[in-house]
Amino acid sequence: MTLDRDAFEQAAERLAPLIHHTELDHSVTFSKMAGGNVYLKCENRQRTGSFKIRGAGNKIASLIGRGERNPVVASSAGNHAQGVAYAASRFGIPATIVMPTNAPIAKIQATEGYGAKVVLTGTCYDDTYEEALRIARDENATFLHPYDDEEVIAGQGTIGLEILRDLPGVDTIVVPAGGGGLLSGVAAAVKQMNPRVRIIGVQAEGADAIARSFRAKKRVVTQYARTIADGIAVKAPGKKTVELINEYVDDVVTVSDTEIADAILLLIERCKQVVEPAGASSLAAILSKKIDTGSKRCVAVLSGGNIDVSFIESIIERGLVARGRRIKFLVRLLDRPGSLISLLSIIAKDGANVLTVEHDKLVLGLNPNETSVHIACEVGGKDHSARLLKDIEAAGFTVEIEE
Amino acid sequence: MTLDRDAFEQAAERLAPLIHHTELDHSVTFSKMAGGNVYLKCENRQRTGSFKIRGAGNKIASLIGRGERNPVVASSAGNHAQGVAYAASRFGIPATIVMPTNAPIAKIQATEGYGAKVVLTGTCYDDTYEEALRIARDENATFLHPYDDEEVIAGQGTIGLEILRDLPGVDTIVVPAGGGGLLSGVAAAVKQMNPRVRIIGVQAEGADAIARSFRAKKRVVTQYARTIADGIAVKAPGKKTVELINEYVDDVVTVSDTEIADAILLLIERCKQVVEPAGASSLAAILSKKIDTGSKRCVAVLSGGNIDVSFIESIIERGLVARGRRIKFLVRLLDRPGSLISLLSIIAKDGANVLTVEHDKLVLGLNPNETSVHIACEVGGKDHSARLLKDIEAAGFTVEIEE
Repeated sequence: MTLDRDAFEQAAERLAPLIHHTELDHSVTFSKMAGGNVYLKCENRQRTGSFKIRGAGNKIASLIGRGERNPVVASSAGNHAQGVAYAASRFGIPATIVMPTNAPIAKIQATEGYGAKVVLTGTCYDDTYEEALRIARDENATFLHPYDDEEVIAGQGTIGLEILRDLPGVDTIVVPAGGGGLLSGVAAAVKQMNPRVRIIGVQAEGADAIARSFRAKKRVVTQYARTIADGIAVKAPGKKTVELINEYVDDVVTVSDTEIADAILLLIERCKQVVEPAGASSLAAILSKKIDTGSKRCVAVLSGGNIDVSFIESIIERGLVARGRRIKFLVRLLDRPGSLISLLSIIAKDGANVLTVEHDKLVLGLNPNETSVHIACEVGGKDHSARLLKDIEAAGFTVEIEE
Repeated sequence: MTLDRDAFEQAAERLAPLIHHTELDHSVTFSKMAGGNVYLKCENRQRTGSFKIRGAGNKIASLIGRGERNPVVASSAGNHAQGVAYAASRFGIPATIVMPTNAPIAKIQATEGYGAKVVLTGTCYDDTYEEALRIARDENATFLHPYDDEEVIAGQGTIGLEILRDLPGVDTIVVPAGGGGLLSGVAAAVKQMNPRVRIIGVQAEGADAIARSFRAKKRVVTQYARTIADGIAVKAPGKKTVELINEYVDDVVTVSDTEIADAILLLIERCKQVVEPAGASSLAAILSKKIDTGSKRCVAVLSGGNIDVSFIESIIERGLVARGRRIKFLVRLLDRPGSLISLLSIIAKDGANVLTVEHDKLVLGLNPNETSVHIACEVGGKDHSARLLKDIEAAGFTVEIEE
């Protein structure tokens, strides 16, 4: 096949009964923060929680169109697993997904919930990949690559068609990139329809094989892939994807894990949207001013929303500390009945909420009749905590902020 | 005015340039869980994060339509504050919002961010209400009641028109109720257009004045309003709202705070949506089977999304403990170098993630050469934690689960 306009339009037709045409939201908040007009393409709310169902769905529909109804097999601990499982079950094709033995139980259950058989083996992607190839060989199943496949790429590119339809005047589309399936698909689709639109790829600083491939003008494989954005933590980008990216994409930028975490928290607070780290990387690039959005219409593709709630919890906690909404301090007090109450009364009067109190005798310089306590508090912000610490000192206690 | 069909249609026209026609999402997950077909009306993603802008917007537009361009004043620490502030600024009318001195800084900032003047006074609603009335009198401003006003009710009712347009075959609409503005508006609008549609109100168990008013067939004011759902924690429902509710609503049910918290967590995990406690109460009523959804098309109005992230954090934490994803246990070990390592090695080998370790000598029955440690761990689920505890015991340690 060739990835011409027809390939993408046919993919869109095949996918129509299977997927959501996801919303394209104009964000007043992020437009103000970044300049220009910022829109969010909400693939986090796509069926199965990510765009991966587009590629998997187009691939399976194409196989069936050619009369190939073999079972399918894939290796993935992430969104590809759920995309393949769901698409296969909708088309009535058996699917086996190979996952590492340490895959999160929630992801195993979600994949099984879509009707796939899950096989657990090894602890890394290579192990599961080998096992998937073995199953494909021994059981005459079709192996579905997560990104380096033109029919998968055509499926992912349908996001570009939806954006062009919903916002014909779009200037820039910002797309997360790991293996490159989404970025190459969107770029090839959009550039062939409207070459004026700029396409920018985003990678995590610690997993930047595509950024390097783009600069080197040839495929680069990295030895590392270290980022909180598991969905784009890829060392070996695709051969086909890199070729398309180097042909169609205008630039590839990188963002830090901190920038990604900040974007996730803002999406929760300001847009009421839950987005996974890979999915928030596009917005992170816009908010950290790595992309010129001034007086432009700029779309951030939020590629997925499958984030574990305990990870949301740590992102919130980190954000609250960074904003001065959580503080920790050490107070010296007399080691006798009632002295803790006098301290806590000041904190209560100031309207701060105590989270933890820990006594600690092992602090240098304590008098024999003293003890010290570590206190963690929830406060309204930096002004509130400054007032609180001043009031504690004014009552005669020695306070030290802990960071 | 009369709240006839025209009143709602005119409100919709006035609001069109000001608000989003919010999405009505079909939820496969919740349909499976509850039976029938469950749809979510996403007012959590309305401008200002809640439906309140509809009532405030229609009120201010109506005043202007009558040539009244006085400044407006409101008392609220919640969504009404932001709705009035935003609508007033869009219409170029000065707004003052009176909030209690202990209002969360984030809400004060959001309200000021929409261009309103914020006045802080007192610590309860009555104080702010008195101050707002004083400002209205002394500064010739128009006081905007949050719910007991027909033009406000007409604005909230426009949600009903959108639902009827997007899902003409709807059978049941489930609506959160506090003061009753949203419930009475949706009920009056929908029943006058299609009396076949059932309208069910939802209240928190600890703030059930409207449920009581519905049963008593007259307005009941309660002495309490205790619930995590601050948006519907109202002791005194409106006179007009109760009259309309008792005329048009089919039933009013109540949900517990635990049911609300569970619904919030599911919305985050399965729908990638952030919803505040009041807003999730409608879904909570459906998921706890208080409403018959079997073979019906049932819409849950998610009325708002303004929830503090530190509250999301505690809901996640609570949910993780309830699902066995967080466990705490007490282990006795020999008080000598290296014994903690041998314990932690077992935990690491089993793939559990240690959250906290606390030594504790004050445990009854310890031998003089022993100490004990409280360990909190993140695990995959109940099977995983059972395996972990078995392995720790198999290594000769005494373990006690802590709850």
